[in-house]
Formats: sequence, structure tokens, C-alpha cells
Amino acid sequence: MAEDGYDLWLRYPAAEPAAAEVIAAHARELVADDASPTLAAARAELTRALTSFTGKPPAVVGSPTQSGALILGTARSPLIAGLELPLGRAGEEGYLIRSASVDGRAVTVIAANSDRGVLYGTFHYLRLLQTRQPLDGLDIASQPRTRIRVLDHWDNLDRHVERGYAGESIWDWHKLPGWLEPRYTDYARACASVGINGSVLTNVNANATSLTPAYLEKAAALAGVFRPYGVRVYLTARFSAPIELGGLKTADPLDPAVRAWWKAKIDEIYRYIPDFGGLLVKANSEGQPGPQDYHRTHADGANMLAEPLAAHGGIVMWRAFVYSSDNTEDRAKQAYSEFVPLDGKFADNVLVQVKNGPIDFQPREPFSPLFGAMPKTPLMMEFQLTKEYLGFATHLVYLGTLFEEALAADTMVAGKGSTVARVVDGELHGYKLTGMAGVANIGTDRNWSGSDFNQANWYAFGRLAWDPFAGARGIAEEWVRMTFSDDASVVKPIVDMMMGSREAAVDYMTPLGLAHLMGTGHHYGPAPWVSDLKRPEWNPTYYHRAAADGIGFERGPHGTGAVLQYSAPVAARYGSVKTTPENLLLWFHHLPWDYRMKSGDTLWNELVRHYDHGVAVVSQMRSTWAALQGRVDAGRFEQVSAFLAIQEQEAQWWRDACVAYFQSLSKRPLPAGAAAPAHPLEYYQALKFPYAPGQAR
Amino acid sequence: MAEDGYDLWLRYPAAEPAAAEVIAAHARELVADDASPTLAAARAELTRALTSFTGKPPAVVGSPTQSGALILGTARSPLIAGLELPLGRAGEEGYLIRSASVDGRAVTVIAANSDRGVLYGTFHYLRLLQTRQPLDGLDIASQPRTRIRVLDHWDNLDRHVERGYAGESIWDWHKLPGWLEPRYTDYARACASVGINGSVLTNVNANATSLTPAYLEKAAALAGVFRPYGVRVYLTARFSAPIELGGLKTADPLDPAVRAWWKAKIDEIYRYIPDFGGLLVKANSEGQPGPQDYHRTHADGANMLAEPLAAHGGIVMWRAFVYSSDNTEDRAKQAYSEFVPLDGKFADNVLVQVKNGPIDFQPREPFSPLFGAMPKTPLMMEFQLTKEYLGFATHLVYLGTLFEEALAADTMVAGKGSTVARVVDGELHGYKLTGMAGVANIGTDRNWSGSDFNQANWYAFGRLAWDPFAGARGIAEEWVRMTFSDDASVVKPIVDMMMGSREAAVDYMTPLGLAHLMGTGHHYGPAPWVSDLKRPEWNPTYYHRAAADGIGFERGPHGTGAVLQYSAPVAARYGSVKTTPENLLLWFHHLPWDYRMKSGDTLWNELVRHYDHGVAVVSQMRSTWAALQGRVDAGRFEQVSAFLAIQEQEAQWWRDACVAYFQSLSKRPLPAGAAAPAHPLEYYQALKFPYAPGQAR
Repeated sequence: MAEDGYDLWLRYPAAEPAAAEVIAAHARELVADDASPTLAAARAELTRALTSFTGKPPAVVGSPTQSGALILGTARSPLIAGLELPLGRAGEEGYLIRSASVDGRAVTVIAANSDRGVLYGTFHYLRLLQTRQPLDGLDIASQPRTRIRVLDHWDNLDRHVERGYAGESIWDWHKLPGWLEPRYTDYARACASVGINGSVLTNVNANATSLTPAYLEKAAALAGVFRPYGVRVYLTARFSAPIELGGLKTADPLDPAVRAWWKAKIDEIYRYIPDFGGLLVKANSEGQPGPQDYHRTHADGANMLAEPLAAHGGIVMWRAFVYSSDNTEDRAKQAYSEFVPLDGKFADNVLVQVKNGPIDFQPREPFSPLFGAMPKTPLMMEFQLTKEYLGFATHLVYLGTLFEEALAADTMVAGKGSTVARVVDGELHGYKLTGMAGVANIGTDRNWSGSDFNQANWYAFGRLAWDPFAGARGIAEEWVRMTFSDDASVVKPIVDMMMGSREAAVDYMTPLGLAHLMGTGHHYGPAPWVSDLKRPEWNPTYYHRAAADGIGFERGPHGTGAVLQYSAPVAARYGSVKTTPENLLLWFHHLPWDYRMKSGDTLWNELVRHYDHGVAVVSQMRSTWAALQGRVDAGRFEQVSAFLAIQEQEAQWWRDACVAYFQSLSKRPLPAGAAAPAHPLEYYQALKFPYAPGQAR
Repeated sequence: MAEDGYDLWLRYPAAEPAAAEVIAAHARELVADDASPTLAAARAELTRALTSFTGKPPAVVGSPTQSGALILGTARSPLIAGLELPLGRAGEEGYLIRSASVDGRAVTVIAANSDRGVLYGTFHYLRLLQTRQPLDGLDIASQPRTRIRVLDHWDNLDRHVERGYAGESIWDWHKLPGWLEPRYTDYARACASVGINGSVLTNVNANATSLTPAYLEKAAALAGVFRPYGVRVYLTARFSAPIELGGLKTADPLDPAVRAWWKAKIDEIYRYIPDFGGLLVKANSEGQPGPQDYHRTHADGANMLAEPLAAHGGIVMWRAFVYSSDNTEDRAKQAYSEFVPLDGKFADNVLVQVKNGPIDFQPREPFSPLFGAMPKTPLMMEFQLTKEYLGFATHLVYLGTLFEEALAADTMVAGKGSTVARVVDGELHGYKLTGMAGVANIGTDRNWSGSDFNQANWYAFGRLAWDPFAGARGIAEEWVRMTFSDDASVVKPIVDMMMGSREAAVDYMTPLGLAHLMGTGHHYGPAPWVSDLKRPEWNPTYYHRAAADGIGFERGPHGTGAVLQYSAPVAARYGSVKTTPENLLLWFHHLPWDYRMKSGDTLWNELVRHYDHGVAVVSQMRSTWAALQGRVDAGRFEQVSAFLAIQEQEAQWWRDACVAYFQSLSKRPLPAGAAAPAHPLEYYQALKFPYAPGQAR
């Protein structure tokens, strides 16, 4: 049977005989009730997987009749209660997986304090099977380090996905609630398998229509499908909805009529969706309405929504992604400037959602200075899984390393080791609410994410939301084993390729701390020359500031001073050219083309070499993959091969266009061995892509 | 394995043992060369199917070594030449399928004059296997009755499909030519299996960008995939392309620079696609540019393109779907008025493409008066497979009966029996070129067409394009056998349901000759009350003309005289209320609410009863389908069940809204037994569906 990626990392292929025997020996019997839809889902998943691995379904029994039983449940089950497990280690959502003994019979127990914990433990156990881990002497305890682990779908009601490269929105609004695609269930399964517990169904560039009864009925139908899998539904709130839907004259968050409208609307939502998660808001950013339209603060806006939500246990996720057309301050500084003064002013059930870097999901950015700067306000991380700036569907770019780099960044706000991960998991500042959001890369494409490798970014996001200290390599390895093959000689080259892939993209797109060089609007391909857009910070030239004298954005104390938003030791490090890591050099500093890099060579030469290196790594990836022919199923092999060929071509395009452009300013010869761009600069400047996918509407 | 509709009618499930034995006995060996990609495709299809039916692949041999060989090829094969078959009966594209004997061994021969014919014959033979027909004593000869059998894809370059209800365009333009979806091949296989030999890739509301080199390269890549399956690529031509792409000041078809531009462009297209089929043009219709912008005729426009196309063997398909904002003539008359005077003025390689009815793919229309009225101009039929006016994806409406009704309509232009089918197949007027176009219902939905039953409309179109005299019931039956089950007790109820489904839709939407009562823009649901749109003929009230005095559009001699566009006997029949068939009554006549119908009851009562009957038939369809649970695979069973529930709900909505509205004008009580609408009229009038799919952009 041909593989087409639909099954994600939940493939459960028939195991080779020896492994099948080991698996069967540990799951001859299944002690699992279906007292709740969640427990039923856990049992069904185990039955499905075990049947597929071993060729026959496990016997479902009330208590073990022989050695080799698998027992799952909460302490409500007398059998599990009798084992006196240290369930405190499982927390509310976590689980224990233990080898144990019942009446002298060897058993494996998956136990938790909640049904959801049992489901998560079940998927962990399946991961052990899928990756052929030892099944004896198990003593696993795991619980999530963040509470809100959500996918943000930038999906419009017409099924267009903003920055989507995997087909249309999987939400078929028109046929909801009458038709529930089986895909909705598989989406929830996949989310649960990595611990994702929420789904924001609608675009942050929000449409008030999503809050009308007809659409709440549709959202409720989705919530019903997701509920057994512990995935709560969230929606985005258009701040001006009281005007658009309610017919009010204002959306002023301090206006009593506005507050009453939102309270009634939120109460109404909970009548449709009793376990509704809450609202995500993009306000006063890129043209969206917000509280500042009425001279109120972000806190005023968030708290207005938070109050009625709190009554139902709901939350507000308020985005810190703001920059303004009439603010001439360095764009990288604006979120900090707006939000830090509000620290402590937000209601208890508000999280401020911060992108990993200060600008916008670029291939590489330093960490956002907000992390560590708002100790009294829970900050949740926002990562982008959809590759808006990283090659759309076709480029193989594993984002686990990007996420890891951002989480491991040290804010130094409470001494060395004050990492972003410790901010996000709440430990550093004692946040009660914690969370991580991933901008989804999911669509109607058969393989969900536009490419097989993009699935790894969904997977890695979920695993890191559960544990922000997990390593990108380990995650890649378990994903490859589950997704492609457990054969070590296949796993190793693929994992190596993934681990180097993001740095390759940085190199062929925006090396040495450059950013925002992409095409206008669609963000497809290189356009570093663009300088004529209305708002200064829309232009690539705003970011690279390349000219005859050099290149880079001076954000040191003598520049825009953006470095001063970081803690003193970080500010000192990034403030000085000498101590700024070279991979962020031009983010923080404007330097002459002949500036001497650590290698002893000039900045110009190094810049070109990075571009070349990025292309070379992609070529190497193609060779690596080609060598796997016959060891990966033909369907996925062919698509990955074709996509790598596209990536190589586009990497070369990025390199050639950027080198041609920057050379027109540096006026320097290419370093020895570097090839001239294939076309003159004008060729690249003339390219137009009016129908590139994912454009904002 | 769950069925999800992807395999269409080409499923080839394992045959029950007795049938497998019969099949194997007739195809123990395969004598089939792969001397051309088309012959290779035929052999591959047979191998795939036979392997799947019987559990093992047939032996491929050079000549039969035992009885039970299957031999395919053209007379280029000495083995086939030696059989001295009457290949004249196969024509250029057809085939013979014969039981024969070679050296005393029983064989089955699929023979043709072209490789394409062999492929078509192969699919015919597979149909025999799929529907369990006798395999002995075969003597089949078949050739298509039309030459151009094309799908028109109303697909935009951003993958939006105008009037598409099956996801996005299957053409992933952004990844072309680098990535060739396996789906492209399966599309071509499916087309070839029913004899479709062309694909117009782009929307008739055309975009000149599709003629730029970047897009021609992409179209050429698709042409490469389709070529082995005999499917030629066509494009739509935006008439103003010489201005938009060529920088000319005019697109006047008599301007030498414009003519030179098109010649160069067409020559360029053929450099990319040597077997390019030709251009489809929508001109001077609904805002599209055209020759009338320069006071030239449709013939001037078409002939300008035809000349350079002729040099390469290409054709022009010029649409007769025209109506004008500054023409106050009855819209139903305008196409005839514009085109009939041009009869004989078109170049030899131009076809005029005419929709089946005079308006626009309504649930029921009389046949277009153009059929029979242009003896010197090849008219090709345009049917709409995508259900723009017939319930989008979810309503089960089999269009075979609609197509059959249109083709069987008698123009009487050369006496009784001068059917539309005989116009379209060229026989009546001696057309050299003939064709049929179907507006595709294909998208990225897993099941291709938005629902399993919509696949039947693609299938039926292909079979009727091949043979316009084929019967809708027979086509439905073979489709059901191949798609769902060969069990007679499953086939019969499904076929019955399909055969009644279109009349049900007519009844719950637009009974008794009504038309164009649908919602504005999206065409979703009922909106007979709409009367405020800018152009009169955009308003439903223009079409039904309901008022206190009665309902219907008087097109008799004392009305708009539209009936006079038909031949005299037809004009007489439709011109008189008494002889007009009741199912077209209100199309041709305005009648008082109390007009006595043949039943003796009033028009008003009959109207309501038709609405009720339509809903009742859908309820009956739900019951019929529910009774098939367990006899159709669960995946497809569930979706069809859910869609029928939606259809029942929407049929009721149509009925209630239309009855409420018409009652507000008729001021008459509902007939005995008819239920009052569930809501007051205002409720229906207030419904809004801004994100209904498929809207024109």
C-alpha cells in the first residue's frame, strides 16, 4: 500500500516478527474501560496500533488473566488504585507508565489523574512501541510544563489559509455542522499524540462573523469531535465585533454597553461550547482594530474580555505582535515599548502571546526582549510552524532547532540560566498560567502540512510545548523513526539532514543576522532591493540598510538602542560588535563591507560564502536523500526528491539574487571560487509571482 | 481498507472466487507491447486491474501459449494484422473487442487503428470485467460520435475554482513544473476511461497570465502527464491579452499588430506543447473583453485565433453564452440573436460552444434554440457538471437524466427526430468538427468531485460525449456497479434513487418551468424575492414574474416571442399554453394562480405540491440509502448519509422559502395537507451566506 503521508507519525506499520513478538508479549491483554469518550479513544488507539503491529487485536479483559497485560486508567479504577502509584508525579494532565505486578502477573500500567492523562500516556507508550524501546522495567513519569498548548490556525471562513501552504483550511465551514469530516478526528488524534490541548480555529486577522450563531454552531460541532481528545476550541475575537455584529457605535472597552455586549456574547459562546477555551486577539496591529482606537491600553482591552471569560474558566491570549504606522521607533523595539509598561495590569486569566523574536518569524532572530521583562504577566510563546519565511511547502527546513535556539536563549534577567524556556514554563517568574502557541501548518493537502517533512514541525512544536527543555535532535529522531523507518541507517542521515536544514535556509536567505529580505506581500523568494513601499518598515532596505559604506541595522547604544531592551549583560553582549555572535551580527550592527570577521576574512566575502554554503548544504541534502531510494516508500520518496530539487533551485535563486543585489552596493569582487549570479540583477528584480499561495486577504 | 472515493469507478476490488476464475480464464496471458506510452498505459491499467481482481498478475507474453490470452494493439502488430479484423468499424479513436482464435487458442482481442483506440478499448474491456458481463463470444465495435470531448475547468491561477465545490483546483500551479502530483496521472486515467480527450485547464473568465512563458511551462508539464492517456491540453484566451501582455493599444481582431501578436503567441504555445488542443474563449459576456469592443463580430474574433491555430491543427471553441447589460431583449433570446446571423462566417476549425439551455444551466431549461439554427457552424454542447444551481457538493443530483433530456430534445428543424444529439454529433448538418464540453466538477477533495455521487456526473458526461444516444439509466447502472457494488439488490435502489434525483431537485427548487430563483452571487439556496440588483436579468423576479395576477415569463408570440426562435412546430408547441409541457409551463407562459392544470387543480396548488413532492423524494432517498447500511463501505456510507441529511434540510428550506414568498403574492391558502413554512418569509430573506464556496472572483 502506497504511503501518502496522511497517517503522519501514527502509522503503526506491521512490526517485523521479533518486534511483533515483544510487543505482543507486553500487551496480550488490555485492561481498559471506555467509561468516558477519552478513555474510549485511548483504548481504540491502542487496539488499532496493537492490531496493526502484531496482526491481531489484544483481548480486552476486566483484569489480567496472564502475564503481559496492559492496564490503563485513573485511580477511579480499583485495579490502579490498588497499585498505590505515586500519582502526584503525574499532575493534572500527566501520566505514569510503569512495569508492575498484579497478583504475580507482570503488567504494564498507564495511569493518570485524569482521563486526558491516560490518553497522553497511551500515546507515549505507543511511541515506545513505534521506536522499539525496551518495554521492561518501565518507570516513566511525565507531565506538561505548560498549560495552554495550542495551534493557531490562520484560517479564514472562506477556507483560505493566510500563510498556508498545504491547501485550504481543513475546516469545511460550509458543510459544518451537517458533515463532520473524518479528518477532524484524525487532527484531534494527532494533536493529542503530542500533547496539544487547544485549537484556535480562526485567523488572528479576525472576522466577526465567526462569533455569529451560525458559526458558533459550526465551531461547537468541531468542539464535539475534539473533546474526547482533550483539545479545546478557541476563537479569535475581532475587537470591533460590538460595532459590526452588535450595532453599537463604539468598541471602547470601558464603555458599559460594549462590556455588556461582550459578556452576553461570551455567555452565548459557552451555551454552544461549554468547555470553550477562550479568545485570541490581535489588536492594534497591522490595521486591526483595538483598544488604542479609543485611547485605552492593551490591558483595558484584554481585561474587558477576560472578565466574562473568567466566569466560565476561559482565558484571553493577547498578542504582543504590534507595530504601528505612525511610530517611527525601530520596529524591533515597539512591542516591548507598548507592553512592558503594562506589566501587572492584566487580569489573571490573560496571557500575552509573544513571537519568539522581535520582528516576525524570520529565519533567525534574537529572542524577543519581552521574555524576562514582564515578570507579573504570563507570557506565552508564539512559534510559526507554517513556513511563511522559510520556503513555503517545498523547502525542507526542520524548525525544531529554531524553537530550541529560542527557548535556550538566556535572558539573564535573574542571572545566568534565566532562559526563555524558564520564562515560558512559568518557573522563573512564578506564572500561574503558561502556554505555547504554534501557528499551524495544516491544510487539506493529503499529507496535512504541504510536505512530509513539514509534519515534523507540527510534531516538534507539540513535544516542545509539553517540555520546552526537550532537545530538537531527540525529537527529530523519534519523529523519523515513527514517520519513515526505524532502520538506523535511514534514521541517521535523515536526522542529520533535518538538523542542518534550518541553518542552511538561514545561509541561503538571510545569513549573519540579516532579516526580512523576502518578496513583497507573498513573501516568496528574494527581494532585498525593495524600497518603495509606503511604510518604511515594510521595505527590505529598512532591515539590511546596505549601502556603499556597509550593511546591517545598528541597534547598539549608538544606534536605535534596541539592545538596551535586554537585561544589562545581554545588552552589553549584543551592544558590542566584538561580543555579538556572528550569526546575529547584522541584526544588531551596521558594519563596513571590509569589516574583519573572526575568520580573518572580510564581511563581504563571508556574506557571499554563507550564501554559497547554504546552497551547498541543500545540494548535499539532495544527495543524502537520493541515497535512500528504495529504503523509503516510493510515494513519499518521489515527493521529497522533487521538493528538494525545487529547494535547490530556489536556494540558488535566493543566493544569486541577494549576491547580485548586495554586490551592486558593495562594489566588491566575489571571493575566490564564488560563481557569478546566473542572471543580471534586473532579471531577479523583474520576476513577479502574483499567484503565490498563502497571501493575506 | 476504508474507501474514500479517490479510486472513482476504477476501483478493481478483488473479485469473488467464481468471478475471479472467469476473469483469469480470459486473461491468463497478456499480449501487449509498450511500444508507445499510450500502449504502455493500457498494459499497465490491465495489469493493475487483473492483478487486483484475481490476486495475481497476468503473464506478459509475445504470443499466446495457451487459451485465454488477451491481445491488444493496432494493426502494426502482426498478430492483430493476421486476424484480419474489420478495423474500419473502429474509426480513428474507436476499437473492436472480439473473441477470436489464434492457432486454435481462444483469445480476446482489443484492436484499434490508433494507440488511443487501444487504450479506450482496454477501458471498455475493464468495464465488462467490473460489471461482470459475459466474456465469451464478444463482438464489440465502438467509436466516439463526437471528436472533441473536453472538460472545461473554471480554475483560476490562485487555485480558486469558480463554481467549484470540491476543494481547490487540482492544478498546483505554484509547484508546477517542479512537482507533478500523482493525482494528475489519475485524472488522465479517469478521463481516458470514459473517452474524454481534452482538458481546458483554465477558467473561461480568463487571465492573460496563463499565456505567459512561466505558465506555458507549467501547462506543458501537465500536457506531458496527460499525453499517454490521449488527453490534450487546451487553454482559455483572454481577448485583451495583446494589450495586457503585448503592450498593444488595442485587441481589435482586424488590427494587423494584434493578429501578429496572436500568431506569435500561438506559435510559442506550440513550442511548449506540440499537441496543444486549442483555445476556449468567452468574449463579450459578463464583462469579458471581446471583438464587439471594436465593433467586430464574434466570427471576426474567433477567426483571428483560428488562423494561426489551424497551422498547428488546433481549434477554437467560442462560447455562445452571451448577454449584454445594454440589451433589453429577453435574455433567453440574446445568444440566438447574436450568433445565428453569423452562421457560415466562422473558420473551419472553430466550434461554437452552446449551453444546453438558453439561460444558464438551470435545473430545467428547454433546449437552446441555437441547436438546429446554425447548420453551417459546428455547435458543440456545453453541459455543467459542477452543481452551481443544483445543490453544490452535498445534494445527490444525477445529471445523466438532464443531459439525456437535452440531447433527446427534438429541434424538428429537419422534421421529427431532428434531435439535439443529431446536431451535436454532426450528423444532422454534416458538421466536420463535433464536440461536447463539460464544466468540470473536479477539485482537491479526496473524492475528486465533492461527493461520491457527483463522480457519476463526470462519468456520465464522458459516456454521453462518446455516444450522445446512450441512456442515462444504463450509464447510472454501470457506474453504480463499478463504484459501489455489483450486487443487484444494491444496484437497483441506488440507480432508482439517481434516476429520480434530478426531478426531485427541480421540484424543490424550480418546478413547472421556473428558473433562476437562487441566492445572489453565490447561488446558494433560495432567494426568489431578490429584485434590487442593478441589471434586470440578474434578479430572480425577472425570471418568475410572480405578482398578484399570476406567475411565469410570457415568451409566447404575444410575449417576448422567444418561442419564435425555435423551428415552426416547436414554436407552435411552446407558443401555446395548452401544448406546452407542464414541466416548462412557466418558462414560456405567464399564467394566473388559478389556472387549471391538467390535473384539474389550480396552478398555485400544483406549484406547492411540486415543492412538497421534491422534499418527499429526498426523504425517500434518505430511507433508501439508510437501508443499504452494511452493504456499502462505511466511509462512503457515512458521507452520503450526512449529505442526504443536508440535502433534505436544504430541500425543505428551498420549499419553505419559495412557498412563503410566492404565497405572499398569490394570497392563496396552501392546498390541503401542505404544511406552513417553518418560518415567516422575513426569516428566509434575512439569511446571509457570505462565505458560500465557489463564488466568482
